[in-house]
Amino acid sequence: MRQVIQNLEESKIREVANAGMGRSDVLAFWFGESDEVTPDFIRQAAMDSLQRGETFYSHNLGLPELREEIARYMTRLHGPIGVDRLAVTSGGVNALMLAMQLLIDAGDEVVAITPVWPNLTAQPAIMGARVKCVALTPLEGVWSLNMKTLLAAVTPDTKVLIINAPNNPTGWTLTRAEQQQILNHCRMTGTWILADEVYERLYYEPSPNACAPSFLDLADPEDKLVVVHSFSKSFLMTGWRLGWLVMPPSVTHHMGKLIEFNTSCAPVFTQRAGVVALQRTNEITPRVVAHLKTCRDTLLPLLAAMPEVQVAPACGGMYAFFKLAGHEDSVVTAKRLVLEAGLGLAPGDAFAPEARGWLRWCFASNDLGRLSEGVKRLKNWI
Amino acid sequence: MRQVIQNLEESKIREVANAGMGRSDVLAFWFGESDEVTPDFIRQAAMDSLQRGETFYSHNLGLPELREEIARYMTRLHGPIGVDRLAVTSGGVNALMLAMQLLIDAGDEVVAITPVWPNLTAQPAIMGARVKCVALTPLEGVWSLNMKTLLAAVTPDTKVLIINAPNNPTGWTLTRAEQQQILNHCRMTGTWILADEVYERLYYEPSPNACAPSFLDLADPEDKLVVVHSFSKSFLMTGWRLGWLVMPPSVTHHMGKLIEFNTSCAPVFTQRAGVVALQRTNEITPRVVAHLKTCRDTLLPLLAAMPEVQVAPACGGMYAFFKLAGHEDSVVTAKRLVLEAGLGLAPGDAFAPEARGWLRWCFASNDLGRLSEGVKRLKNWI
Repeated sequence: MRQVIQNLEESKIREVANAGMGRSDVLAFWFGESDEVTPDFIRQAAMDSLQRGETFYSHNLGLPELREEIARYMTRLHGPIGVDRLAVTSGGVNALMLAMQLLIDAGDEVVAITPVWPNLTAQPAIMGARVKCVALTPLEGVWSLNMKTLLAAVTPDTKVLIINAPNNPTGWTLTRAEQQQILNHCRMTGTWILADEVYERLYYEPSPNACAPSFLDLADPEDKLVVVHSFSKSFLMTGWRLGWLVMPPSVTHHMGKLIEFNTSCAPVFTQRAGVVALQRTNEITPRVVAHLKTCRDTLLPLLAAMPEVQVAPACGGMYAFFKLAGHEDSVVTAKRLVLEAGLGLAPGDAFAPEARGWLRWCFASNDLGRLSEGVKRLKNWI
Repeated sequence: MRQVIQNLEESKIREVANAGMGRSDVLAFWFGESDEVTPDFIRQAAMDSLQRGETFYSHNLGLPELREEIARYMTRLHGPIGVDRLAVTSGGVNALMLAMQLLIDAGDEVVAITPVWPNLTAQPAIMGARVKCVALTPLEGVWSLNMKTLLAAVTPDTKVLIINAPNNPTGWTLTRAEQQQILNHCRMTGTWILADEVYERLYYEPSPNACAPSFLDLADPEDKLVVVHSFSKSFLMTGWRLGWLVMPPSVTHHMGKLIEFNTSCAPVFTQRAGVVALQRTNEITPRVVAHLKTCRDTLLPLLAAMPEVQVAPACGGMYAFFKLAGHEDSVVTAKRLVLEAGLGLAPGDAFAPEARGWLRWCFASNDLGRLSEGVKRLKNWI
């Protein structure tokens, strides 16, 4: 077995979650997942497809109907995006792995902005890349990008720059001006931007299109830019494993080959569900986002009122990321919280060494009472 | 974009199929897929799961219930195989890619036996391997392995030996004695065996367990052996994208990490369908195999009776692989057959250079009349 695979860190989130396995008294906020079932009309579309017997292979790049719906949806948000730039994938994480396979030769240098979802640094490692991390800096609970540091790190030797914004776990988001600076710089260095924008709709700042700033708003179709999306968060479809990629038109054909060699295609009945989700997005996403904002605005003041806590409201995403004074080893803290307080949080160490002492709280909770009950448990434990 | 990805050959099967796209008068036998819908009780299991709202993430390695059913099923066929050696994957091709990621560093040498399904040589290339091909030799239409040539090719420098038997496209199958020789040799050289055994149940020779010989019958749990399986062929579930891996127990934990970074998990509702498929395998697989044997025995004599055709009955799989005298470029031949005869076959070139002049006919046809009508079209065209 490869050394690099043995060295891959197991998820520290799962390490904590395993400590609470089978304990029904734990309030779990560790995973990045709403506790709400997928809307019934989306499930019905998949069931109808199964009933019709759509159980055969489909096109590598996805059903034409789904790609057309995605094109319409993305065009509404970001201006013209053609079907020729789109591929349907088996989830956002699968889309990311496909993009890494497309771009990264062993030995290549990749830059990632951290703290970040650990998959984004593990995937290039699997492809044999050297991963250089540029850390955000926390100021009064707000994680911020030092643009000078980032631009100094991205050189003509950098094959790919990996950015997840709105960010998991910090809630950090790029401004349009920052995106333009990064794009200009990467055009100069010849670096691909791999933008994980799966949280773009979970955005709480005022904006004309109810959407975080996207590199797609600025880039030309043939820019070295791959954007990753998922049905998981904005459509309450985590378990379905359905996502998509936006890429330069000249790349799409090659992506089709990679999909053939990775999963062949997404199931047709799953794709049918995706079509309905996009067609009826107005019945889902705005409600989901409004509820998440309520969750955030319920949880944040309660956390912020605790003297031991340093926290700022996230601009986007579904997480409160906070520092707990006097508890430096967050894996230990998170495990103790599970066992001693019945509270399930994700440890900051899972996302980067600089996030040691921090904890991530996924606030996507159908029942707001769970959030205040969680804070009560945290307080009592302290 | 990586040169190696640009160089990946597009499927020549798809190239031929595209030539016939939208033509309803073409009898298509090009893809490796039955034309029968998944049995209704399997589809019902997925629909029930969706109805219950099972739309959340699940364990990286698969639902415990499904892994236990797989363990029971594999144990019935091959002796004790524990849950600790199993991972559920998003299809057989996904299982193969995961195994390649586990084993292959860029620059590693990999040996593959050809002609073979092109994915098996493309995947190691994506991981940056040097792929050395050992060709089977056709004798009177029967493709056979020269064991001396194979063993000479596999040296201590060989990281992985990739074998697909029963083989797509040739129908070639390994004997138990050959498997023992290969296993002994690979133990000596320290080479991993990656065995794609997805066709093991589609086996037409007499056998005690209605199953082709498997490396699992011979190997110890900690042998360097990874076996790939799929629900696609034996359970009529191609479009579901569900498969599994058997590996040494010490590897399973690492495979869980790789699944997290590739697809996270298979959908729960898909896995529920898999559970029912395995529980009721006796209602599906024997009928499927008996029908495929009838298909084979319908098609083969008709093809063999043509003076231009060299063919032998496949021991396993679902393909007739035959040489058509006087038609050396099989991509050209296959395209002409589509356009001029309304007959859709896969070109031998898709599987290896040595299979130029050969054509693959997937005989998994619900309606036997389609097979004889296809032969009539072939005859008329010649």
